[in-house]
Amino acid sequence: MSERFHFTLHATDGRARTGTIHTPRGEIRTPAFMPVGTAATVKAMLPESVRATGADILLGNTYHLMLRPGAERIARLGGLHRFMNWDRPILTDSGGFQVMSLAALRKLTENGVTFSSHIDGSRHLLSPETSMEIQRLLGSDIVMCFDECPALPASEEAVAQSMRLSMRWAQRSRDAFGDRPGHALFGIMQGGVTPDLREESAEALKSIGFDGYAIGGLAVGEGQEAMFGVLDYAPGFLPQDKPRYLMGVGKPDDIVGAVQRGVDMMDCVLPSRSGRTGQAWTRRGQVNIKNARHADDPRPLDEDCTCPACTGYSRAYLHHVFRAGEMISGMLLTWHNLHYFQELMAGLRDAITQGRLDDFVTDFHATRAQGDIRPL
Amino acid sequence: MSERFHFTLHATDGRARTGTIHTPRGEIRTPAFMPVGTAATVKAMLPESVRATGADILLGNTYHLMLRPGAERIARLGGLHRFMNWDRPILTDSGGFQVMSLAALRKLTENGVTFSSHIDGSRHLLSPETSMEIQRLLGSDIVMCFDECPALPASEEAVAQSMRLSMRWAQRSRDAFGDRPGHALFGIMQGGVTPDLREESAEALKSIGFDGYAIGGLAVGEGQEAMFGVLDYAPGFLPQDKPRYLMGVGKPDDIVGAVQRGVDMMDCVLPSRSGRTGQAWTRRGQVNIKNARHADDPRPLDEDCTCPACTGYSRAYLHHVFRAGEMISGMLLTWHNLHYFQELMAGLRDAITQGRLDDFVTDFHATRAQGDIRPL
Repeated sequence: MSERFHFTLHATDGRARTGTIHTPRGEIRTPAFMPVGTAATVKAMLPESVRATGADILLGNTYHLMLRPGAERIARLGGLHRFMNWDRPILTDSGGFQVMSLAALRKLTENGVTFSSHIDGSRHLLSPETSMEIQRLLGSDIVMCFDECPALPASEEAVAQSMRLSMRWAQRSRDAFGDRPGHALFGIMQGGVTPDLREESAEALKSIGFDGYAIGGLAVGEGQEAMFGVLDYAPGFLPQDKPRYLMGVGKPDDIVGAVQRGVDMMDCVLPSRSGRTGQAWTRRGQVNIKNARHADDPRPLDEDCTCPACTGYSRAYLHHVFRAGEMISGMLLTWHNLHYFQELMAGLRDAITQGRLDDFVTDFHATRAQGDIRPL
Repeated sequence: MSERFHFTLHATDGRARTGTIHTPRGEIRTPAFMPVGTAATVKAMLPESVRATGADILLGNTYHLMLRPGAERIARLGGLHRFMNWDRPILTDSGGFQVMSLAALRKLTENGVTFSSHIDGSRHLLSPETSMEIQRLLGSDIVMCFDECPALPASEEAVAQSMRLSMRWAQRSRDAFGDRPGHALFGIMQGGVTPDLREESAEALKSIGFDGYAIGGLAVGEGQEAMFGVLDYAPGFLPQDKPRYLMGVGKPDDIVGAVQRGVDMMDCVLPSRSGRTGQAWTRRGQVNIKNARHADDPRPLDEDCTCPACTGYSRAYLHHVFRAGEMISGMLLTWHNLHYFQELMAGLRDAITQGRLDDFVTDFHATRAQGDIRPL
């Protein structure tokens, strides 16, 4: 096992890239989709099942874990990997996004954010220094800088002020992180939808120096067109030889568009959250399994899918167990969705390697346009 | 695959027996514990995981399945085995017990029970003939006679009248079942806690003739002492060469006592229901995982258990995910509980085979008396 975190670029196709992130806990094939394991579990899945879908890395949420069961407790129990029985890489976010969206009685200052837990009301501080310490206690392989992520739309002035605060916090995160061989620290570019601010942010991060660079402040309500607009130029401000991570994205067509624009890593709760609410993602589009038209349908969700939900069960069964409120509904649909997302990533990687990404994307959209099922 | 349903007795130890029930869908090792898959799923488990715990057969509930998704629908979809992705034997109950405990606006007559669905209020009839038809549509391997099961305590006169009604229904069930090679029909002995009534019921059933015999009307509130009291004599009224099935039992010590008294098959929701409410069953007794004393405990539920919950996770983790309301809590605890129940059955079978059941039972009780954990 290599002790050094590094990124190898294997091939490019247009702006799209495929490569490998090497970590002491294993390799991450890029473009990579990271399932979200908020509270030390990818909801409705056992970790060996998450791995079976093809995931190389999980995301854990600093905000949730610091509040319950607590970072010190996880450290005493041997770290997050051992705690949740996942021995491959884990990326943790900084808590910055969740604290602004979930916590109560927030107070933002130059130092950081004080807030009350949404679970028990206890008071906490998240700052660059405490976020680095919590992520160290968790044993995260890829640590994210503590930043502020303003919701869009926001004024350019507000976005600029917030970005500059995040850049000062990025320097403090870098200083607090120190030198931890085998562990990586990623900076987070902010700047909203303004190219000058994105460039200013990228320059600030590059002058500090990180192991990877996230594109933050997107997927926060701006819409796909605006997001792709930023992705048309923002990745170009970042170093070619480091991984680029688009945070909180997304739907399959968001993922495809982001990969076309040079993104290497993404994460989203969508496949697991959708799975628990009866929504399946397939190459033919979205299927709402609670719809009555599935009640007698003997066909699988996707006849070409090799996941356990599609090889073992009919739409009629999936409809029945969803309607009956059975846990196997969330278990099977989540597995299917994660399988589909990982299969999409594998397809993108292969297409980039073979220089046929345009054909892959054309086929991706054409298959979706066919609708989710053929006539019985 | 043998086309004929039959039972082979391998060994006895006192009144306890071990054997094999042969069915076209596979063998059932007895004494057998049958996990309950009420609504075409053993809650929180994939069927391959249920099989991995050592289960040879599942139980399905006629009452639930006839109401949702409907027996005709399951038949159109290829039967219950295919529907729920379980290709081994399935026993279905008759609906008689559930209709009296769950349905609304029940009316019991000589013909059967008319009732309103607890799901949508629709009116239905369960009778010996409709129960046989529904169980045929489901494709059940072991079909149960339609009977009435009075709650205890009840007057001897009420129990006698109910038993004699059940015996008339047993004859009608036998007539309606007809001749279905590879499928078995079990009679159900009633008679409460009165030896004369139990004997009268057994004689009535034997004169009709069944492929197996259930001991009904127990585990309905009479307590373990009264249940064991009946089991001290009732199995002796039944044929030696047919399987004996004790319905709705039970806790591990109920199971051990029933096996000692000559029972071959049992079913209970306990391991799966407990698993979803944070209760684990171990050889050292019951563990309430939500108890705060587990919050920092790095040890597994049971250090000697080989199930995924015990080999992969600490009590601290199981405590955390239960408190956080995560589905993996029910998934892991259910798996552990079913694993433990099946391991207990395997231990009982081995002990009977080797003629050391008394030692096994002594050790079973001594280990439980030690308490669920050693000091840290």
